[in-house]
Amino acid sequence: MLDVKSVDEVMKIIDSSFGDFSIGTEFVNIREAVGRITAEDIIADEDIPGFDRSTVDGYAVIAADTFGASDSLPAQLELAGEVLMGEKPLFRLERGQAAIIPTGGELPPNSNAVVMLEYTDNYDDGFIYINKAVAPGNGVIFRGDDVRSGSVVIKANRRLRPQDIGLLAAMGKQHICVKKKLKVGIVSTGDEIVDITEKLSGAKVRDVNSYFLYSALLSYGAEPVFYGVIRDSYEEIRQAVERMLNECDIGLISGGSSVGARDETCKVIDSFGEPGVLVHGIAAKPGKPTIIGKVGNKALIGLPGHPGAVFFIFNIFVLHLMEVMNGTEKSEVRYVKAKMAVNYPSNEGREEFLPVKLEKRSEGFLAWPVFSKSGLISLLSLADGYVRICRNSEGLTAGQETEVILF
Amino acid sequence: MLDVKSVDEVMKIIDSSFGDFSIGTEFVNIREAVGRITAEDIIADEDIPGFDRSTVDGYAVIAADTFGASDSLPAQLELAGEVLMGEKPLFRLERGQAAIIPTGGELPPNSNAVVMLEYTDNYDDGFIYINKAVAPGNGVIFRGDDVRSGSVVIKANRRLRPQDIGLLAAMGKQHICVKKKLKVGIVSTGDEIVDITEKLSGAKVRDVNSYFLYSALLSYGAEPVFYGVIRDSYEEIRQAVERMLNECDIGLISGGSSVGARDETCKVIDSFGEPGVLVHGIAAKPGKPTIIGKVGNKALIGLPGHPGAVFFIFNIFVLHLMEVMNGTEKSEVRYVKAKMAVNYPSNEGREEFLPVKLEKRSEGFLAWPVFSKSGLISLLSLADGYVRICRNSEGLTAGQETEVILF
Repeated sequence: MLDVKSVDEVMKIIDSSFGDFSIGTEFVNIREAVGRITAEDIIADEDIPGFDRSTVDGYAVIAADTFGASDSLPAQLELAGEVLMGEKPLFRLERGQAAIIPTGGELPPNSNAVVMLEYTDNYDDGFIYINKAVAPGNGVIFRGDDVRSGSVVIKANRRLRPQDIGLLAAMGKQHICVKKKLKVGIVSTGDEIVDITEKLSGAKVRDVNSYFLYSALLSYGAEPVFYGVIRDSYEEIRQAVERMLNECDIGLISGGSSVGARDETCKVIDSFGEPGVLVHGIAAKPGKPTIIGKVGNKALIGLPGHPGAVFFIFNIFVLHLMEVMNGTEKSEVRYVKAKMAVNYPSNEGREEFLPVKLEKRSEGFLAWPVFSKSGLISLLSLADGYVRICRNSEGLTAGQETEVILF
Repeated sequence: MLDVKSVDEVMKIIDSSFGDFSIGTEFVNIREAVGRITAEDIIADEDIPGFDRSTVDGYAVIAADTFGASDSLPAQLELAGEVLMGEKPLFRLERGQAAIIPTGGELPPNSNAVVMLEYTDNYDDGFIYINKAVAPGNGVIFRGDDVRSGSVVIKANRRLRPQDIGLLAAMGKQHICVKKKLKVGIVSTGDEIVDITEKLSGAKVRDVNSYFLYSALLSYGAEPVFYGVIRDSYEEIRQAVERMLNECDIGLISGGSSVGARDETCKVIDSFGEPGVLVHGIAAKPGKPTIIGKVGNKALIGLPGHPGAVFFIFNIFVLHLMEVMNGTEKSEVRYVKAKMAVNYPSNEGREEFLPVKLEKRSEGFLAWPVFSKSGLISLLSLADGYVRICRNSEGLTAGQETEVILF
């Protein structure tokens, strides 16, 4: 019997059952690290910048020497020398002196500000005339202003973006310690399912789910492993699951459509011992006949047979499971606000995931439901995202503001 | 002299100068095709589903036989047989008959609807009692309902998502024709710049831009090629650009900070003939000293030296350039609406790109400016996206609604 659980209950079961999963780590070159997840806090072992650095082209000065300077009464400073790009200045600035400095140049010792070229005059008489007062720190990034040696620059459990890789390069980190990619096995069961490399015959249909799941796992940053199509039998399912448990962190069993096949999947999961099946049935549309199990510290997910249902169960539960197992923070910014274009009734008593297409209007987005008969996969390809309709709602009304979660 | 152009003018120059770029194509297995761009319309060469298919567990019927049926007055139909999963039914349904059928099973010839199991009774007397009338098509996806043979299923110039790969699998497409990845060369110039594999000395700084650009290109789906760090000299820049023109579609020259280095980059681009430099200076903050050039049908971009400026110029102009050269439609749904958390004055007379951090509140997102001194790269890593402040605006006020473009 199905003991159907709500979406929120299932999320909590995933959190509590897989939150302590610990994945291996490896060192990678930062050129290959974008999208990977940090395994530990990354700590700066030097200051950035490593020296007081000019942010403008102009003259390095001691700020106090410019106080009161104006167009009508410029400060007259002695030209003490020139700072060359990439080289340490070999002179020290004394009171009453200035030095030519380029953007990125190192400030001479004792100077504490840079006056931009446009606020100065140079008549080649050995003096620089400053037409504007500057405060200490103007035109300068001081040593360590950007990153302080010893500080945590990037925290553990963070998915690295290109700008983070730039930051790692600035710190001189060539290799960093990241989590291994989650290895996720995929098997399709169903007497009516054939792989796309085979010819269709009888009333067979092609294996859509494996290819969707494989691509979705690649996009997420996991390592998919394909175990092919098997028949709806306890023995074949058990054999495939055993291999996945040996070789992977997660096993996805995309189910035959029959109730019997789902029962076999449950039996197989329980046959490996406690805790076995954790969830059998989710109060969600589509996706009700979903199974979540645990063997050792690994996860086994029985997915429904319909590609439309697999799509939502993957995006909502499997992605969440992988974030939990990776220890990554949930990103909260994957949705946009949109107004419903039409009424959409829903009184299912279970949470509904409604695919929508977005239309950009001057006043914001309009969300058009992509009405989807169970199993129509061409429509999913038209949608930009989906709306979650909570289980106690009677649906959505035209003009109602909703959050659209983007694919 | 800089002939500074507005952001919109630059976008139009990119559109008109590179819109006719044509990239090579290649065949890839659909398992490796997620994220790739279709080179041609993909046309179905068969119907999906390939047969009339039940979407529920129940009984196949001729709908007219159920008209008027109710709990109190069920329709009595003769049990004609059972449809087996994945197999063609070998019998035809006659008026007054019904057949057991599983979800996904093929409808027997002459039947046109399926009654769900829960609306039927079976007393093992050779008859099925139907308690609810069904219309033709109920519980059925007819042959070709999902995809019609001969129709365009996925258009050319579309970036493939996991759900599209599922659709390709349903059509039995093992290999598809996609555009080659754009090959993008990266070179860093600057006498003060050293690669991260080298030790810092003097007032040198590490090459941040190459590593950011390399990772950002990988994330976009281009093929980055690294040409190392060179000095700010006409000869060295020309040599690197010549190699990039031979081997790549786009060359990125991330500039030394000095005005002289930028002039050299312009001279190099013009030395390869017409049209040469198209844009020299953009009315944008940061990123003013950006150069866009064209040699043959290839693009050369001179980027500023500051990592913060490179970040925005890449995200706004280089990404746009690559979309234009790839012929892909601009996706319009990469932003969220947010209210400014504080005032942010801006009266620069040039468009400003302001990095912000988003905070989720019950009433929506709040955008906090990540104040960034020129060249502070650690702050970019904190931001979730950025706001474009148009050139004629005096800035943003607290509570004002803005669009935040997500990184």
